[in-house]
Amino acid sequence: MEIPEQDAAHMARAVELAGRGHGSTTPNPVVGCVVLDAAGQVAGEGFHAYAGGPHAEVVALAQAGERARGGTAYVTLEPCDHTGRTGPCSLALLEAGVARVVIAVPDPNPKAAGGAARLRAHGVAVTSGVLAEAAERANEEWLTFVRLGRSHVTWKFAATLDGRSAAEDGTSQWITSPEARADVHRLRAASDAVMAGIGTVLADDPQLTARPPRPAGAAGSSGAAGSSGAAGPSGAAGPSGVQKGPLRVVVDPDARTPASARVLDDRAPTLIAVADDVDTGLKADLLRLPRHDAGLDLRALLKELAARQVVSVFLEGGPALAGSFVREGLVDRVVAYVAPALLGSGRAALGTAGVGTIGELHRLTFDEISVIGPDVRLIARPVPTHRQPGEER
Amino acid sequence: MEIPEQDAAHMARAVELAGRGHGSTTPNPVVGCVVLDAAGQVAGEGFHAYAGGPHAEVVALAQAGERARGGTAYVTLEPCDHTGRTGPCSLALLEAGVARVVIAVPDPNPKAAGGAARLRAHGVAVTSGVLAEAAERANEEWLTFVRLGRSHVTWKFAATLDGRSAAEDGTSQWITSPEARADVHRLRAASDAVMAGIGTVLADDPQLTARPPRPAGAAGSSGAAGSSGAAGPSGAAGPSGVQKGPLRVVVDPDARTPASARVLDDRAPTLIAVADDVDTGLKADLLRLPRHDAGLDLRALLKELAARQVVSVFLEGGPALAGSFVREGLVDRVVAYVAPALLGSGRAALGTAGVGTIGELHRLTFDEISVIGPDVRLIARPVPTHRQPGEER
Ligand SMILES: NC(=O)c1ccc[n+]([C@@H]2O[C@H](COP(=O)([O-])OP(=O)(O)OC[C@H]3O[C@@H](n4cnc5c(N)ncnc54)[C@H](OP(=O)(O)O)[C@@H]3O)[C@@H](O)[C@H]2O)c1
Ligand SMILES: NC(=O)c1ccc[n+]([C@@H]2O[C@H](COP(=O)([O-])OP(=O)(O)OC[C@H]3O[C@@H](n4cnc5c(N)ncnc54)[C@H](OP(=O)(O)O)[C@@H]3O)[C@@H](O)[C@H]2O)c1
Repeated sequence: MEIPEQDAAHMARAVELAGRGHGSTTPNPVVGCVVLDAAGQVAGEGFHAYAGGPHAEVVALAQAGERARGGTAYVTLEPCDHTGRTGPCSLALLEAGVARVVIAVPDPNPKAAGGAARLRAHGVAVTSGVLAEAAERANEEWLTFVRLGRSHVTWKFAATLDGRSAAEDGTSQWITSPEARADVHRLRAASDAVMAGIGTVLADDPQLTARPPRPAGAAGSSGAAGSSGAAGPSGAAGPSGVQKGPLRVVVDPDARTPASARVLDDRAPTLIAVADDVDTGLKADLLRLPRHDAGLDLRALLKELAARQVVSVFLEGGPALAGSFVREGLVDRVVAYVAPALLGSGRAALGTAGVGTIGELHRLTFDEISVIGPDVRLIARPVPTHRQPGEER
Repeated sequence: MEIPEQDAAHMARAVELAGRGHGSTTPNPVVGCVVLDAAGQVAGEGFHAYAGGPHAEVVALAQAGERARGGTAYVTLEPCDHTGRTGPCSLALLEAGVARVVIAVPDPNPKAAGGAARLRAHGVAVTSGVLAEAAERANEEWLTFVRLGRSHVTWKFAATLDGRSAAEDGTSQWITSPEARADVHRLRAASDAVMAGIGTVLADDPQLTARPPRPAGAAGSSGAAGSSGAAGPSGAAGPSGVQKGPLRVVVDPDARTPASARVLDDRAPTLIAVADDVDTGLKADLLRLPRHDAGLDLRALLKELAARQVVSVFLEGGPALAGSFVREGLVDRVVAYVAPALLGSGRAALGTAGVGTIGELHRLTFDEISVIGPDVRLIARPVPTHRQPGEER
């Protein structure tokens, strides 16, 4: 039984379900699934909640039971075809007797792809590309991670309406509101790593941990980071409950991080990225990288982090490091908290980013505009033409 | 007959009507009026459309005719009590036999005030202060003009998300979109004067005229500026039809404006504000003002403009002049066009504004957030505590 006119609506629901896993599935994608029975009624829904947990299709099929037979499954990502911590979803769909599978985005992961082909080979009708853009967005971090082999980078900054993040004398507390700062902690918590430059560490001695506000009405949760990601308020945390929150990464070519720095406390793991030629006695996890221009090779840094299963990086500055990331085309999303205030002088939010003339401007598009307390949060992403051609692999 | 629970709804409608006159009533306020009959049914509506035209009350009463007797009038501003180009509205309301008058904002103009008192003296029930905040906002420019005896200032700027309005080499075309530029022309057209610093005139040779896009479906209008103000799309232009658009004002202490500058063409009147000690042969209307700090005395400038019936000034920069206006507490509204782009270096949108440390930050509140083409427009106003205490008179 075909109901193509319903495809978009059911896939939209699947994308919504997928979002519930946001921030807690690392290093897995977020996936949502809706199963209809043969009559076109919703029989099961599911999403992938945490790495090691059941896949979205398995959850939805379990809920549908016998009703899945002859029905349709909507999945935001091509069903996997390999046996990892769970069995292949392509087989689960075949066993359940589903007659049609609608897919939003093909799986770019060579290890997992092949699900659509296997389903087709067994006579299942497969439609692909339905609501692909929305599903891509929901999986943005993971798709970048898999396609480019590097971590996805969100650069966050907070500034006045005129783009400054500190006054002339360096003072900056507090430009944005408590609401905006709470939002930052939620986004940190939904990331795999939080990154800062050594300039920021030396100037501010930040802790760089995620301290998201407790969701209203939540019973005392044992500090499970990632459980209140901005896009995933359902709080589907992994079963471990002992995560210590995102990895802290300091970009510090000459290993100038003081032994007493708060980023070196035991509240979360920390990685200090240093130059491969530096001689240091710093007691910390060191990641040795080649030097590049003004600092370290940031592309190499993101590849190394990806190798450590860091899907998403939340880059918190300062301006110099952010400028380098922007110049290298390594910022995938910008989250700007704009305070209703004017400074007229003082530190700019963004440092030199390789633009000499207006034609070299880094173009973005606004994705989302929200009011956060008295502030405005603008989320933007680079326009595709500005991705470095060499980056696609 | 009393219907207080309806007061807010009818006054909201009156405020909406008032807004239709926005940009074309100078040097008068915008005013809206709703008249109910004795049974509480709407019998007449009106707004003040242009200086010299009938007042809102007169329009609404004429529409209501005999139905006004025993009824209620909602007026956004206290009915005038003096005979100007038209007779006093207080008398018109009495003659119409209205039983109750509901006022949003008392008239701050000593020449016109007294309407409420006269009505009360004749036995009319008068309620004041209903929806005062919304009505104040609709009349923001005029109230500033009357209360402070100076022109109201809107500072407009266009910048990237990181607050820059030109690249390192000075190039800046076009950071914002055609849609944003069209919006700027609409706001210019709704202003009495458009202002720029000599730095901008020397750098860009701008024309500073209002060239608003024609409203869709409008028959060829003969260039009546002010007829398509952003807040007054009804296009209630004055009967003259020969206005040449807003006055152009250049802030130019040493009379450096070149004789060939486009601001001196005949497309609109122009005033060059120069220092009172400068010796110049510049052929232009000159306004001589005392020097102050980095330039001219801007407060004196705005008082002089007010004396010339300039209610609203649209300040277009550059950064140095805008910084001085902000420092002096003379910016009443900020309109920021934020482009989805990053520069990282180049000219900042705002120059030094007297802030040395974070406690001196100029605090605003966001009033309005809109999407204009690919850009975001943020409208903000200073928080009241930052108004200079000496300014209230
Ligand atoms: N309001 C906000 O949102 C916010 C957020 C964060 C920070 N901040 C402020 O920013 C200030 C610090 O900023 P900053 O710009 O001086 O320092 P930074 O960006 O935090 O760190 C810059 C340093 O990072 C190292 N680095 C390594 N690789 C690099 C590369 N490829 N490109 C650039 N730098 C690289 C360099 O260290 P070496 O010099 O050792 O080579 C460089 O000096 C602080 O005052 C802090 O308060 C504000
Ligand atoms: N993207 C945008 O939204 C935008 C808009 C406008 C302009 N711009 C750019 O801004 C640049 C020019 O800006 P600018 O900052 O150099 O010049 P400016 O602000 O246009 O003019 C500054 C000049 O105004 C005079 N002035 C008089 N009274 C003053 C006071 N109280 N405070 C400050 N200045 C006063 C001074 O002239 P004297 O030096 O003669 O004393 C001063 O040098 C141009 O490159 C233009 O392209 C950008």
